[in-house]
Amino acid sequence: MTDVDVPQVADPEVAAIVRAEVETRWPHNVSGLDELVRYGLVPFGKMMGPWLVVRSSLAVGGDIATVLPAAVGLECVQVGAMMHDDIIDSDGERRSKPAAHTVFGEPAAIVGGDGLFFHGFAALAECREAGAPADRVAEALTVLSRAGLRIGDAALREIRMSRGICPVDAYLDMIADKSGALLWMACGVGATLGGADDTSLKALSEYSDQLGIAYQIRDDLMAYDGTRAGKPNVSDVRNGRPTLPVLLAHERASGERQRRIERLLADTSVPVGARYEAMAELVHAYDGIAAAREVSHRHVRMATTALEALPPGVHRDALMDLTVPGRLV
Amino acid sequence: MTDVDVPQVADPEVAAIVRAEVETRWPHNVSGLDELVRYGLVPFGKMMGPWLVVRSSLAVGGDIATVLPAAVGLECVQVGAMMHDDIIDSDGERRSKPAAHTVFGEPAAIVGGDGLFFHGFAALAECREAGAPADRVAEALTVLSRAGLRIGDAALREIRMSRGICPVDAYLDMIADKSGALLWMACGVGATLGGADDTSLKALSEYSDQLGIAYQIRDDLMAYDGTRAGKPNVSDVRNGRPTLPVLLAHERASGERQRRIERLLADTSVPVGARYEAMAELVHAYDGIAAAREVSHRHVRMATTALEALPPGVHRDALMDLTVPGRLV
Repeated sequence: MTDVDVPQVADPEVAAIVRAEVETRWPHNVSGLDELVRYGLVPFGKMMGPWLVVRSSLAVGGDIATVLPAAVGLECVQVGAMMHDDIIDSDGERRSKPAAHTVFGEPAAIVGGDGLFFHGFAALAECREAGAPADRVAEALTVLSRAGLRIGDAALREIRMSRGICPVDAYLDMIADKSGALLWMACGVGATLGGADDTSLKALSEYSDQLGIAYQIRDDLMAYDGTRAGKPNVSDVRNGRPTLPVLLAHERASGERQRRIERLLADTSVPVGARYEAMAELVHAYDGIAAAREVSHRHVRMATTALEALPPGVHRDALMDLTVPGRLV
Repeated sequence: MTDVDVPQVADPEVAAIVRAEVETRWPHNVSGLDELVRYGLVPFGKMMGPWLVVRSSLAVGGDIATVLPAAVGLECVQVGAMMHDDIIDSDGERRSKPAAHTVFGEPAAIVGGDGLFFHGFAALAECREAGAPADRVAEALTVLSRAGLRIGDAALREIRMSRGICPVDAYLDMIADKSGALLWMACGVGATLGGADDTSLKALSEYSDQLGIAYQIRDDLMAYDGTRAGKPNVSDVRNGRPTLPVLLAHERASGERQRRIERLLADTSVPVGARYEAMAELVHAYDGIAAAREVSHRHVRMATTALEALPPGVHRDALMDLTVPGRLV
């Protein structure tokens, strides 16, 4: 799961409210499990999950106070997933500091991620005291848990796709579940708590999936276009992950070069820096970056179209803004 | 977290209903994340979590059909915690077969445990369709998530207590959170869904904590009294875990022998089999088993007393039966 460092994804107001809430719940001197929770949450990311909860709720007529606990909860769930991802991918850096498992050890980071999940659900339950009707909390529980299952299934597929090439369509399906469900988790919880009708939920579901695909492609590209921050470029190659620019370069490459790409994914005997450099050269040689951008644009357009079914207004406009290149995708 | 193989914890009827429900949801040919979920759930354990959900609900006036999804969900959450525990403890065996991480790899087992947690919450949400009022589902969500956080905090304390001695009281506090909250998670969810009043919830909370302590002490003892099945006896010693019989033997031992116990917990250079044999000898020499049993009996009595505040009837009697030595404790 990615934690993209891009300018102004979230508006400063929502992010500030959520940051203040996190600081209240987990002040700097917390201990035990909460120390790990805070380590994952702070320094703050772009708060995209919380922002989507709030904006999606407002877009369908909800209010911010009611969904604030869920907004914090979404940040918890998404950071928990990242804490586990960093163990799975052996990534040593997250949000430009050492990943939790390198500081606290892997056992503690497993427990820390679990704790962040449970905090996410506990926070959702708090929305009731904050004014959400119980039936909406129960519906949001379905959205949150089912989205988590989609992400988990995708994570497993991603692990199994490692060290080899897969069809582009299988890859796009996987990232729709991995990153699409990540955005849907936030949009769906916010909209459900805000009392969305089926049309709005369907619109946000399609928007999330399509935007999520584009978002993951941007993350894939960051390893090769020099824009990545806070996470090593070599991570995907080290883990033998066939990302979209690699898959598209592979499609376009000649037989011999195709074998070379496959070997770079499968072979762990060559030092990872050299493998990364060789892969980057092949991705550039076969225009993998431009080709991946084109796929991304297609999904961004579908996200834009989907949003048109949402009630018009400033909040729909704000969600629409995420589809502008350079924001999230 | 333990999965004690003791006779007749659950009555055959409840266990059979939950087993059938698991088989329907995750039949033998499931794939992806669900393959891991099924691997964790089957072969079935004693279904203590589901049984406590059902009995606690019935004890306060609930019905079985309404809480059946939550009963399955509790088994999921508890098995998910065990899947992660087996990674943390490097235990290679669970329910008398290879632990999930040894079969599917550690990354997949991390995701598998996460998936089991999300299935647990998804199943809780289903209780609404099964007839539970939304406000009770929202309250049960609070119970389930907060109990999970107590267990997580205890798991972290347990990791940090490793390789050394700690005060007996700190140990008992830790296992109240670890195993007490494990039972409370089930009792509390069932009772909340069944519409329990505050008196009944308080009674079940106290019952769970006290019985959980006794339950964990039994698990501690199993490593030394020859009754353990499905999990290696050496696990606690290998992980440097100061369990109650060890702590009590340490309290009673002479200075030199105390140092010896401390070294056996801390020193990983000696082969684990030899360390285990030496520890077992010291535990027996200082009557650690009898002393731990005595502590256990005290907590069992407190569990029994707590239950008296629950409405009398066959379901309270069934819960009371778990306090009979040889059942659960």
